[in-house]
Amino acid sequence: MNQPLSLAETFGTARYRTTGNGPRNVRVLLEALQNVGGDTLSDMYGKGETIEKFERKLAEMLGKESGVFFPSGTMAQQIALRIWSDRKSSRVVAYHPLCHLEIHEQDGLRELHCLEPVLLADEDRLITLEDVQGMPENVACLLLELPQREIGGQLPDYAELEAISAYCREKEIALHLDGARLFEILPYYGKTAEEVCALFDSVYVSFYKGIGGIAGAMLAGDSDLAEQAKIWKRRHGGDLISLYPYILSSDYYLDLRLPQMAGYYEEARELAALYNGCAGIRTRPEVPVSNMFHLHFDVSKQEAEAIIAGVQTETGIGLVAYLKKTGESSCSTEISIGDLYKTVPKDKLREAISLLGERLALA
Amino acid sequence: MNQPLSLAETFGTARYRTTGNGPRNVRVLLEALQNVGGDTLSDMYGKGETIEKFERKLAEMLGKESGVFFPSGTMAQQIALRIWSDRKSSRVVAYHPLCHLEIHEQDGLRELHCLEPVLLADEDRLITLEDVQGMPENVACLLLELPQREIGGQLPDYAELEAISAYCREKEIALHLDGARLFEILPYYGKTAEEVCALFDSVYVSFYKGIGGIAGAMLAGDSDLAEQAKIWKRRHGGDLISLYPYILSSDYYLDLRLPQMAGYYEEARELAALYNGCAGIRTRPEVPVSNMFHLHFDVSKQEAEAIIAGVQTETGIGLVAYLKKTGESSCSTEISIGDLYKTVPKDKLREAISLLGERLALA
Repeated sequence: MNQPLSLAETFGTARYRTTGNGPRNVRVLLEALQNVGGDTLSDMYGKGETIEKFERKLAEMLGKESGVFFPSGTMAQQIALRIWSDRKSSRVVAYHPLCHLEIHEQDGLRELHCLEPVLLADEDRLITLEDVQGMPENVACLLLELPQREIGGQLPDYAELEAISAYCREKEIALHLDGARLFEILPYYGKTAEEVCALFDSVYVSFYKGIGGIAGAMLAGDSDLAEQAKIWKRRHGGDLISLYPYILSSDYYLDLRLPQMAGYYEEARELAALYNGCAGIRTRPEVPVSNMFHLHFDVSKQEAEAIIAGVQTETGIGLVAYLKKTGESSCSTEISIGDLYKTVPKDKLREAISLLGERLALA
Repeated sequence: MNQPLSLAETFGTARYRTTGNGPRNVRVLLEALQNVGGDTLSDMYGKGETIEKFERKLAEMLGKESGVFFPSGTMAQQIALRIWSDRKSSRVVAYHPLCHLEIHEQDGLRELHCLEPVLLADEDRLITLEDVQGMPENVACLLLELPQREIGGQLPDYAELEAISAYCREKEIALHLDGARLFEILPYYGKTAEEVCALFDSVYVSFYKGIGGIAGAMLAGDSDLAEQAKIWKRRHGGDLISLYPYILSSDYYLDLRLPQMAGYYEEARELAALYNGCAGIRTRPEVPVSNMFHLHFDVSKQEAEAIIAGVQTETGIGLVAYLKKTGESSCSTEISIGDLYKTVPKDKLREAISLLGERLALA
C-alpha cells in the first residue's frame, strides 16, 4: 500500500487552498516584472531612481521624512534599535517576549549590537500601558509589534496604543513599530498607515507578509535615522549593489494587494467563525483583527495531522499546511488570508470544516 | 550652447564600450530567468533545492565540504573572520591595508564583531611571506585577496602563495581567501579553483564581478564553518525567505562566463599594451594577471575628464566611465574586461587610444 500523503502534501495538492497567495515560486517574480522595461537601471549600492523612488513612496505613505529599503526586517529592526540606543546612550531596549528579535534571529541583537532587551508582558498576552509604565527608567526604545503575530495577531485598543505613545513621548523613550503586518491591521483600526505611524518614532514594514512580495523591508523615520541606517546597512552587508529584484516586486505587490486588505480581514473573520463552530477547534483571537489568526486543536499534533490530511484529500480543500505542537494533546497553526481564499467555493469550504469538526469530535 | 557631455555620459552613450558586460539593468535578470520554469520553487530561509543545489555545486568546484550562499561578500567575509576568531579565541585578524573590509564596509568588522585587524604590507604593494612571518602571534586568521583589487589587481607568485599557506598551516593561523575575483585569475595561475582554494581554509567568491551576475556570494569551507555561518547569516539579517533571484542569476552567469575568463585575461593584456604605448598613460600592473587593471593618467582629473570625454564623443569608443583623483595632477580608473570588449572593432580602438595619447601629450 502507498503511504498516506503528509499534511503538507495534501495541502499543496488540494484543488483549493484557503490561505495564502499561492506557491512561492519564480512565477511570482516574473509576474512582478512583466511590465518593467528591460532597460530599467539597477539601483547601485542604495542609490538610483529605482530604490530612491520607492523609498520616497513609502516614506510618504507612512508619514515619515525618509525611508530606507532593506533586504530583511531582521536587519532593519536591529539597526533601528541600535540607532535609538546610541542616541539615548543606553543599551536597554524593551519588547514582547515573543518578539521576532527574541525568538527568530539567533540573538543577533545581543551578539552583534550588545543590546540588552527587557521583556514586557507575559508570553500569552499583549503589552499594556501598565507594562510600559513599569519599564526600567533606562529603556532607550520600546518596540511594539502590531499585530502581535505569535499570539495569533492580536491588537491593543487604539486608545491604549495612543496612551502608550503619549507616555513614551513624555518620558523621551523612542517608540518603534514592528509593522511587518501594518497594512493588514488598517481596516480594523479604521486608520491610515500615516495615522498609525504618527504614534511611532520609527517604523518597519515588510513586503512579503500580506503584501506577498518576494522579500524586502522598509525602515522609515527621520532623515538622520535614515542616514545612520544606511551606514549600518553597509556594515551588516545589506547594502547590495542591486536590490531591484526585491524593490520592483515589493512595489508591484504593494499596489496590487493594499486594496485587498479590507477583504482579507472580512474573510479572516468569516473563516474564523466557521472554525469556531466546530467542537475541538478554536481560533485566537476569537474574532480576527487582521488577515491572520491562529487555529488551536485539542488533540495531539500527530492525530490532528492524520485527520486534517484525510479531510483535505477527501474534500479537495486545503485548510492547514503545517501544525506546531503546543502540548501533549494540543497543537496549532497559523492562518493568513490572501488571494486564494476567494477562489474556494463556500459550500465546499463549509462541508470540509464540518467534516473536520466531526472527525475531531471522534478523536 | 549645450553643456558638453560628462565623462559618464560619453561612456554610456558610446557606440562601443571596451569594459564590462553592459548596463546593469533588469534585462540582466530577465535573461537569467529565461529558461527557468515559473513553477521552480523559491528557497525558504536557506533551505530547498534551489539554494542547496547551488551550494553543493560551488562547494565541489572550490573543493570544500560545504558552501553557504550569501546576499553579499561583506556579510560572508565578516562572518568568516568572526568564526575563525571564535575558534582560535583571538580577536586579532590580519589583512592588507586596502582590504575591502578596511575601506568599503563602514568598519562593520569592528562595529559588529569587535575584531581587531592588523594591517600588513604597505598600501601600494602585495602582502609577502615576510609580512606574514612578521605578524603578531595572536592572529587568528589571515585574509588574502587574490587579486589585490585596489592596486590594480596584482597577484603574488604562486610559489609565494604556497609558502604563505604552508607557514599559516604550521602556525595554525586560519587562511581565508577573498576570492571576489578568483575565477578571473585562474588562467594566469594555470590552476583550477580547487587547486587554489586547497591553500586556504575558507573561501569567498562573488557572482557579480567578472561573472556579471546581479548580486550574491558564496562562502565555502568545512561543514562546521558552514553551519556556524548560517547562524551568523540569520543574525546579520541575510537569511532571507527568498534569495532565488540572486541564486538563479549567479548560477546562470557562472555557467555563461567561466569559459570566457581566459579570453578576458588575454584581452586585458592586449588593451593594457595599447594604453602603455601612449605617453602620459600607464597601467598597473603593467601586464595584467586577470581581466582587470588600473589606468593611471599624469594629468589632473578635470583635464583627463575633458580629454577622454572628447575622445569618446569623437570616436564612439567608450574607454573610461569614471576617474578617481589620485593627486593634483594625476588620476586613475579601473578597467575590467567583459563581454563588450570583443565587440569593439580593433582598428577603431587603436585610433581612439592613439588620439587619447596625442591629446594627453598636448595637455
